[in-house]
Order: sequence, then structure tokens, then C-alpha cells
Amino acid sequence: MSLSMYDAAVPGMVRSLKNLDAIIDKAAAYAAGKKVDPTVLMASRLAIDMLPFSTQIHRATETARGGAARLAQMDIPSLPDEDKTVADLRDRLAKVIAFLESVPTETFTGAEDRTVTQKLAGNDMTFPAKQYLFGFVIPNFYFHVTIAFAILRHNGVEIGKADFIRGI
Amino acid sequence: MSLSMYDAAVPGMVRSLKNLDAIIDKAAAYAAGKKVDPTVLMASRLAIDMLPFSTQIHRATETARGGAARLAQMDIPSLPDEDKTVADLRDRLAKVIAFLESVPTETFTGAEDRTVTQKLAGNDMTFPAKQYLFGFVIPNFYFHVTIAFAILRHNGVEIGKADFIRGI
Repeated sequence: MSLSMYDAAVPGMVRSLKNLDAIIDKAAAYAAGKKVDPTVLMASRLAIDMLPFSTQIHRATETARGGAARLAQMDIPSLPDEDKTVADLRDRLAKVIAFLESVPTETFTGAEDRTVTQKLAGNDMTFPAKQYLFGFVIPNFYFHVTIAFAILRHNGVEIGKADFIRGI
Repeated sequence: MSLSMYDAAVPGMVRSLKNLDAIIDKAAAYAAGKKVDPTVLMASRLAIDMLPFSTQIHRATETARGGAARLAQMDIPSLPDEDKTVADLRDRLAKVIAFLESVPTETFTGAEDRTVTQKLAGNDMTFPAKQYLFGFVIPNFYFHVTIAFAILRHNGVEIGKADFIRGI
């Protein structure tokens, strides 16, 4: 048994996005219990100059989708960053999970020897694939998922570490 | 060139811990500028029933150190969870970075075929090594680093995503 870039990239992100979907469900129930429009929670931030929950979900999903597609050398359009409601965000998660689950493992064969180019702040940046996955995609992905978690937790949603790490 | 468990585990966590050290430096300067004992910031939380900043650092470093040691089949004692001050926490980070940088890459050869046992909530849990690294160590590590970041950011420390992702 050897280690592939697929093993390193895909299953962990899929599981984490599924956990995020269940966390959004708890957030919606919490808002309903407080008689607050759940869109308020989706628009919450940890600081006024940080991105809101909905954008954290956009970033997490684009990092996962774009990261996997670039490593697999697949061409996929990004999803527009317009989702704001619970239903929109769950639909977005479902699309990205379905995409990740559809990526054939063979597309990652030899991916560790590729380079990956991504536009960052308007400039094309090229990375060796291992650096891209372990130094950029994975840290960014978990950053946005965790900030999303933190926004809800800070607002009182009853979630814990188990909701984040579930499914191993 | 092939992919090793070392590539997947060690360099990303080392870089992230170095970034965390620089972030703590900014936090200490911010507290000093406000004439607040920086230990107050190290004891801050995002919610009263979440762990404080200092414990987020304990968890991140123990996840990194214990995770790498278990995958490499090295026997290391855990560090006591007593650090509370900026100096303590930076010393802890330095020790863990030095340990990670000292782990010989060869100790990870074939690690993808190992199983790893870790005590969780009092029970010995055994995982296939890939699941342990990608489903447990890496998500937990970035979870605690990101919550630490979020605690400081929420308290007004002027840090941004670049401080988190620096060094790729």
C-alpha cells in the first residue's frame, strides 16, 4: 500500500464538509429556537473586518473544489459567491461534496510530481504540487472551516469538537 | 519522486507553528500597546465554555508532537500543560518545532502501512496511519491553531490570513 495525493487531499475534505453541513443544520435549529432568521447567523462575523460565516463557507468549498481539480488537472468553473441563506449554503456544500466524490482516484496518479498554478491576489502563482496541497490547500481549507465553526460557537450554537472531527 | 507520510505531516506543521510564534509576538506587542498584561490575552476565550488561547496552543503542539512521534514510532513524553505566559508558550513552541525538525525522515518510511494507537477520552483507539494523519492529526492541528488565531483576532490583534499562511 502506498500513499497517494488523493488519500491526502480528498477523503478528509469530504468528511469535513459533511460535518459542516450537519453543523449548519444545528445552527439553523438554534436560530429557529431563538426566533431569529438564520440568515443573521450566516452573516455573522468574529470581528467587523473579518469575513462572515457565508463567505467562510465559500472559501472552504472553493479551496476544496479548486484545490482538488487543479491537482487532478481537471477544468471546473468556480461557483459564484452569492449564497447567503442556509438552503443556499447547504446546496453549495452538496455540490462540492458530489464533485469531490466524483473525482476519479486515477486522476491523482503522479500528482506529486506536478506543478499547480493558481491566481492569488491577481497574480498567477506556481507551486510544486506537494507544497500546494500541504502548505496551501489543506491549511486554508481547515482555516475557513474552523473560523465558520468559531463564528457559530461564539454566537452560542451548541456544537463542540466532536461535531468538527466526526466520522474518522 | 514519491509522496511520503513525512511530506504530508511534518513541513506544514512546522511552518504553521513558526507562524504561530510570530503571531504570539504580535499579540504581546498589541497587549503592551494597550498597557494590558499579555497573560490576559493568553487566557482569552471565544466562549466561556471553550478552551483559552494557552490551551489551544497546548493542544496544537501536543497534536503535532504526539502525532509525528506516533507515526514515526518514536517514544516521547508529552509536555505538561502548564504554560500560561507569552514566554512559556513561545518556549513550548520552540521545543516542539525543534523536535519536529529533528525527526529523521526515514522514520516515516512505510508509515502509511502502520497502525497508530492513541488514548482518547480514556480509551485506546487504533487507527490505520493514513486515517490517523489525514482524519485526526491534521484537522485537529489546524483546528487549534485557527481557534488560537480567532481568539486574538476577536480581541483586536492586528493579524490577517497572511500571518496564518506565511512561508509557503
